[in-house]
Amino acid sequence: MTTIDPSTIDHYRAFYKKQLLEDTVPFWFPRSIDEEFGGYLFMRDADGSLIDDDKAVWIQGRGAWLLSTLYNTVEQKPEWLAGAKKGIDFLRQHCFDTDGRMFFHVTRDGQPIRKRRYFFSETFAVIAFAAYAKASGDQEVAAEARRLFGKCIEYATTPGLLPPKFTGTRPAKGIGVPMIMINTAQQLRDTIGDDRCDEWISKWIKEIEQDFVKDDIQCVMEQVSPDGSIIDHIDGRTLNPGHAIEGAWFILQEAKHRNNDPHLINLGCRMLDYMWERGWDKEHGGIIYFRDVYGKPVQEYWHDMKFWWPQNETIIATLLAYVMTGNEKYATWHQQVHDYGYSHFHDKEHGEWFGYLHRDGSRSSSIKGNLFKGPFHLPRQEWYCWQLLEEAAKSKSLHRVSDQFSEEQR
Amino acid sequence: MTTIDPSTIDHYRAFYKKQLLEDTVPFWFPRSIDEEFGGYLFMRDADGSLIDDDKAVWIQGRGAWLLSTLYNTVEQKPEWLAGAKKGIDFLRQHCFDTDGRMFFHVTRDGQPIRKRRYFFSETFAVIAFAAYAKASGDQEVAAEARRLFGKCIEYATTPGLLPPKFTGTRPAKGIGVPMIMINTAQQLRDTIGDDRCDEWISKWIKEIEQDFVKDDIQCVMEQVSPDGSIIDHIDGRTLNPGHAIEGAWFILQEAKHRNNDPHLINLGCRMLDYMWERGWDKEHGGIIYFRDVYGKPVQEYWHDMKFWWPQNETIIATLLAYVMTGNEKYATWHQQVHDYGYSHFHDKEHGEWFGYLHRDGSRSSSIKGNLFKGPFHLPRQEWYCWQLLEEAAKSKSLHRVSDQFSEEQR
Repeated sequence: MTTIDPSTIDHYRAFYKKQLLEDTVPFWFPRSIDEEFGGYLFMRDADGSLIDDDKAVWIQGRGAWLLSTLYNTVEQKPEWLAGAKKGIDFLRQHCFDTDGRMFFHVTRDGQPIRKRRYFFSETFAVIAFAAYAKASGDQEVAAEARRLFGKCIEYATTPGLLPPKFTGTRPAKGIGVPMIMINTAQQLRDTIGDDRCDEWISKWIKEIEQDFVKDDIQCVMEQVSPDGSIIDHIDGRTLNPGHAIEGAWFILQEAKHRNNDPHLINLGCRMLDYMWERGWDKEHGGIIYFRDVYGKPVQEYWHDMKFWWPQNETIIATLLAYVMTGNEKYATWHQQVHDYGYSHFHDKEHGEWFGYLHRDGSRSSSIKGNLFKGPFHLPRQEWYCWQLLEEAAKSKSLHRVSDQFSEEQR
Repeated sequence: MTTIDPSTIDHYRAFYKKQLLEDTVPFWFPRSIDEEFGGYLFMRDADGSLIDDDKAVWIQGRGAWLLSTLYNTVEQKPEWLAGAKKGIDFLRQHCFDTDGRMFFHVTRDGQPIRKRRYFFSETFAVIAFAAYAKASGDQEVAAEARRLFGKCIEYATTPGLLPPKFTGTRPAKGIGVPMIMINTAQQLRDTIGDDRCDEWISKWIKEIEQDFVKDDIQCVMEQVSPDGSIIDHIDGRTLNPGHAIEGAWFILQEAKHRNNDPHLINLGCRMLDYMWERGWDKEHGGIIYFRDVYGKPVQEYWHDMKFWWPQNETIIATLLAYVMTGNEKYATWHQQVHDYGYSHFHDKEHGEWFGYLHRDGSRSSSIKGNLFKGPFHLPRQEWYCWQLLEEAAKSKSLHRVSDQFSEEQR
């Protein structure tokens, strides 16, 4: 059995800090800041060379969030604040359509290419605006974060407000909306604060627990009918374990915020347990992209690939579950997914992680950034795990962890 | 150097016939005919078990086309005609929206799930209606085929008639529309005839030649600007070699129809040559899914997988190019892609082909049918190659082929 001891905890804490500040962040910044048009140029090959100067609105927001968060929590470096402002200004000036919704993809100079039917550009803009408002003290940006959060609540709760992709024949809802809204509200609360957050977080957690978590079959569904029943068709059966595990740590994070609420710890750990079992590839290691709830074939072509972000989310979830429960199982899982991630995805030559591996761990693409990958899941993971272990070291939770380790070692 | 001799030609002819009639068609029929609701149940696992009872409208049309075509060209089996009628009736009764456009995906009993922004459901309905009208003599269905072909011309030539996926910032057009329209018109002409076909086929071939075929860089683009210039962004650079090779054989087929028009033979062969060079995987064999025109990374996750249909289209294109030109290179390529396809994709236990392999040829999925795969590319390839070799055997082209072989053997 694999165990980690207190010195290993120190090792991890130092490792995540070093990776974040000396490997991941320097891959992206300062070279990605577009001094000519504002915003960021994130679509890069392995060595950092630019392969496209288009801008993905999600990732413009995520980049501005990262720089603002580093400024707020790590060090008040002027270049981080100035870099964040580049993204905030670009989002505000170029990424909103005349109907108030945001685009998904724009040109380097901010002309719209594509608007999508959902509102994730908006949620990432909320966390960017909120973190930047805290960093800068800019009250106008703070007001904009709150206004846009209100729009997101409206989009999330008003059926038919956004154009539908499917007809009304077989209504479905995804776990993505309550998940992203929990995290958006958490970020807003942690930075500039907002009275709506607690109540809405409780509602969205309740929705996940009631409609998406299936204890009878030990599973977290990616989509369900509006009443929570499983849609027994190929897409309705498709599970996204890394996504559900990301949802698990958002809920564990909420448990932590609520003085280690035991009900929420139990919920988050159940979600993690169920989806580790379904998502961890026992043959090759790593969290696989999709699985069918009943073990049938999945339709999505890349179903058995290993993407970077499910590993990042699982690295966070397992560490947080371990710190909160002391259950040694989570330390073992953390080490497994950490080792898989850093040995298979990390680019030792140029820094950062590759994004896309085949199931067997061989590399599918040299790309570091595209319309879907940028400086988010990996740096957030390194930042979160580092901060969590710093905090644990300063509080009783480390003692509990240490006690647990000592007990294991006896 | 690999060569094939006249006895090998006979071998291939017999092989394609046997595979079609004793392996591929029996995998799908009669079990896929939905006696209760009409149409076909095509979403099946390796052993033929049903994994979803939804219906993809494209493939309903393709299935009805296949059965009608077998009836028209192989044998007038009553069960093929009756089977075709099941699909035709389902398409007419359930697959049209009130605005005259067709759905993409419906439930087993024909309720709409999804309508897409393009009109490929319509083009496959045209070829199904046309082939069935020839088989049955049903003049109402013939009229419906012609009416719908007129709608497709309208959709293809009227900018803004269909809802756009992208803004007008960076206009683009795909090779898919002229390609599919060439083949749709060819099928219509070969079955029930239509005066519009020749002129439109010429226009669409001219569009492909002028805007998509790039002789200076020896490439066929998948999408370009409206003026034919290359869009130097990640999606604009993405090539789909198997798709371009399918277009190559549509043009060679037109050359054959036009008494071996040398200009069209040259065009089709150039397209095949360029995209074989870019698409054939020299390391593992098989035609790869996507490549970047300048060798940069591709964004689509499944870019380096091997799908079934690019192999089928390349098996046709290489054989047709060989029969029409006698160039031994094409016989060699045909044998290479034939061997790769039948050794890696064919399911010797249950029949038909698997759809999805990793780049190294290992199987990614056991699925035989889903919303995108059904009885089309493989049976069309086996039918087309068999018919081509039958026809060549009865005409001078076989002699030319045989002479070529004899010359090679000297």
